[in-house]
Amino acid sequence: MIFITRRERFSAAHKLYRADWSLEENENVFGKCSNPNWHGHNYELFVTVKGEVNPETGFLIDLKEMKRVILQHVIEKLDHRNVNLDVDFMAGKLASTEYIAIAIFDVLRPLFAERNVLLHCVKLVETENNYVEYFGE
Amino acid sequence: MIFITRRERFSAAHKLYRADWSLEENENVFGKCSNPNWHGHNYELFVTVKGEVNPETGFLIDLKEMKRVILQHVIEKLDHRNVNLDVDFMAGKLASTEYIAIAIFDVLRPLFAERNVLLHCVKLVETENNYVEYFGE
Amino acid sequence: MIFITRRERFSAAHKLYRADWSLEENENVFGKCSNPNWHGHNYELFVTVKGEVNPETGFLIDLKEMKRVILQHVIEKLDHRNVNLDVDFMAGKLASTEYIAIAIFDVLRPLFAERNVLLHCVKLVETENNYVEYFGE
Amino acid sequence: MIFITRRERFSAAHKLYRADWSLEENENVFGKCSNPNWHGHNYELFVTVKGEVNPETGFLIDLKEMKRVILQHVIEKLDHRNVNLDVDFMAGKLASTEYIAIAIFDVLRPLFAERNVLLHCVKLVETENNYVEYFGE
Amino acid sequence: MIFITRRERFSAAHKLYRADWSLEENENVFGKCSNPNWHGHNYELFVTVKGEVNPETGFLIDLKEMKRVILQHVIEKLDHRNVNLDVDFMAGKLASTEYIAIAIFDVLRPLFAERNVLLHCVKLVETENNYVEYFGE
Amino acid sequence: MIFITRRERFSAAHKLYRADWSLEENENVFGKCSNPNWHGHNYELFVTVKGEVNPETGFLIDLKEMKRVILQHVIEKLDHRNVNLDVDFMAGKLASTEYIAIAIFDVLRPLFAERNVLLHCVKLVETENNYVEYFGE
Repeated sequence: MIFITRRERFSAAHKLYRADWSLEENENVFGKCSNPNWHGHNYELFVTVKGEVNPETGFLIDLKEMKRVILQHVIEKLDHRNVNLDVDFMAGKLASTEYIAIAIFDVLRPLFAERNVLLHCVKLVETENNYVEYFGE
Repeated sequence: MIFITRRERFSAAHKLYRADWSLEENENVFGKCSNPNWHGHNYELFVTVKGEVNPETGFLIDLKEMKRVILQHVIEKLDHRNVNLDVDFMAGKLASTEYIAIAIFDVLRPLFAERNVLLHCVKLVETENNYVEYFGE
Repeated sequence: MIFITRRERFSAAHKLYRADWSLEENENVFGKCSNPNWHGHNYELFVTVKGEVNPETGFLIDLKEMKRVILQHVIEKLDHRNVNLDVDFMAGKLASTEYIAIAIFDVLRPLFAERNVLLHCVKLVETENNYVEYFGE
Repeated sequence: MIFITRRERFSAAHKLYRADWSLEENENVFGKCSNPNWHGHNYELFVTVKGEVNPETGFLIDLKEMKRVILQHVIEKLDHRNVNLDVDFMAGKLASTEYIAIAIFDVLRPLFAERNVLLHCVKLVETENNYVEYFGE
Repeated sequence: MIFITRRERFSAAHKLYRADWSLEENENVFGKCSNPNWHGHNYELFVTVKGEVNPETGFLIDLKEMKRVILQHVIEKLDHRNVNLDVDFMAGKLASTEYIAIAIFDVLRPLFAERNVLLHCVKLVETENNYVEYFGE
Repeated sequence: MIFITRRERFSAAHKLYRADWSLEENENVFGKCSNPNWHGHNYELFVTVKGEVNPETGFLIDLKEMKRVILQHVIEKLDHRNVNLDVDFMAGKLASTEYIAIAIFDVLRPLFAERNVLLHCVKLVETENNYVEYFGE
């Protein structure tokens, strides 16, 4: 079993807030991340899949195909977008790094299963000082 | 003469658009950067000052003071903010990397002059693939 | 279960030596790391905790609180200090990267347990070419 | 149990191709990576070993020795070489990142076993956007 | 006047050698860089242009256009190629980092002049430990 | 004229203090950098030289020779040392980043002049957030 990881990046706006809370409650819990006028990040996304090497090609999966799947189903929906307002798979969810990572995992898992590799991990880096990892369970 | 550079970071939302243009015109010129719902970046700011070393301390300028000036007058206004809506020194300006860098330079130049060092350069990194430098003239 | 990692940094002096060995023995085993007049590093510390996302906030743990814990109990004791001489939780221990990482883990584990998350890993990067990871067992 | 990782680097040429396929077949499967005149990379290699800390030294393994083993048995064979043509442990194999990582693991495992530590992982970074990890099974 | 820099990357094979020298002479002068079977690098290219900001757009130059020029005229010719054998603008030249940087500068200067900005600098990073800068004179 | 830069690294201990000041005065001016028991850094040193390319080799200067000069005359004296106590060219000087950079420049300038290239810049990075550049005048 071998693990291969592809990095992609997206730049997006978001805020941490709940519509059912007052501004003060949001400010108390989420601090400056709740700024009503949004803020944003250059997110780095690391997608790791695992499986057996195909002896015919020496590949676990063709990286061009892996890139295409991630770009089409994740990056094009998030890049230069507002995570709270523009992204179908985040509708109705808090735009925390935790929930974005989980949502990306849930989008990608079946797509890689169709391609005969297992999605192992989604790592989402929000700033150089913090990141989230989700392994699907 | 010696040069010293301090790096600070801020995460902000912005969009590239002109209120006097239609959505289509903005989209034609600014592409996905004109998304009406904003996007955002982790900006890296490199501020370089120059002057003579003080032989009493071995310092060009005390880095703690240099950091304090940049945080109070630049970072606190930009971090977790919307460049188009929340930042006094960007009011009425296009929120391009070029204009943000120039505005930061204009804010910082007199503050460093009061402290007897010359502001040499403001370098503003928008993504790992592009940055702007402004030397004040 | 989700994993979240916070990076903090500290700059410290240390040396590798045993008081019960001669200079020659220390030099033989520890090489230039045993320089009696010390040397130092910019250490990078990655702290990973794991647990369930709180559906009320979308957080595993509030990163501001996570940062506060690490700064108060680890970074303030190590930053701009001498690992061998100044750090209570390293008293009587060899100042190897391995032992510093283990000691940090032992300091942080109960503090995160009180906050209802599990400390998963302490990763301590000494130079760009070597780092240690400790998972607590 | 503690984990320690050493990074080394090598610059090498390679291509992805099978001698038993035509140029067109190679181009179809491997794309620009099959350029007959080769291309190349600055590879980053992260070798992770695990075991118990020696209380006499505070070390899992002496990093100088760990470096020596990796340089002699891996880096000297790959650095400024052609992976397809010059490297004994790659003879007859496809020069994919997957197979290079596996081959390095197989070279290093017995060498670290002799030194009483377990080889845990070989991570091979081909570009800033993709890497492979192999854990030996 | 403002300066804007775009980073692009390419992975290429090359060797340092002169056809009019023997293998021994090449080895004496160029060392392991003269390996007859080639080696390679992940090159990072930083292209800096300068000029006045267009007040209509806030841009010195549209980064999408800047990227397009660099990709079409430089990266597509170098990426996944052999610098010595495959690249028209390197024909008959030594494939040193110095000469690659100068050749890229000479390709790009007129293309940016047509777009009303001045090419200021080409910086070519061969490994994390060495790079070349050329300013055109 | 072309510019070539070589990066080297060293890990050293230092403190900022003046023997002719009291502990309190040192603490007031230098803050935590004056810790009597030292602290330390992983310094990154970027040395830039300039001149004409030698058409016979395609080199400004042989990087192997450039590396040898920097290692012998700078890195071996600073790496795993105490800047205040162990380094001949820092004797009697404040161990600020500014003065270390100037001292390195003064050591290297004549050595590169003998080799027919001009030393252009010494850049010394103390942490990821601050660095000094010195151009020799």
